[in-house]
Amino acid sequence: QARAPKGRCFCADKGVNMVPPKLIEKVEIIPPSPSCENQEIVVTLKNGTEQKCLNPESKFTQKYIMRALKKRSAFKLD
Amino acid sequence: QARAPKGRCFCADKGVNMVPPKLIEKVEIIPPSPSCENQEIVVTLKNGTEQKCLNPESKFTQKYIMRALKKRSAFKLD
Repeated sequence: QARAPKGRCFCADKGVNMVPPKLIEKVEIIPPSPSCENQEIVVTLKNGTEQKCLNPESKFTQKYIMRALKKRSAFKLD
Repeated sequence: QARAPKGRCFCADKGVNMVPPKLIEKVEIIPPSPSCENQEIVVTLKNGTEQKCLNPESKFTQKYIMRALKKRSAFKLD
């Protein structure tokens, strides 16, 4: 059931296992699409416009993203 | 300990609780920074360039992002 990567994917491989959190400007989750059959996670770094693929299966990625979900915002609108 | 939102945040409020997954082009996780003290999750939709803030605490957001972490890529480079 493994799906083959296609030509228009951003990531050529699994990507790095970690980047220093302080350097992260944003993390993008890009779902599979007609132009790329892989789920991709791309991190943009603060130093310029450098973008790296982040390994979705690495411990760092999992922890970083899970933490993002847990951080409560300051808004209380409910 | 709640941190107040600042002027340069992208999101003016908590954001929507869900968007149709098929419309999602990408999901951005933007960590707190000097210009915005909130953790923000911004979804870009396929129909044009529309961007919406996604409530980090909604069930939809949590499920969508957790699933992204579980999807294995087709690459086996280890």
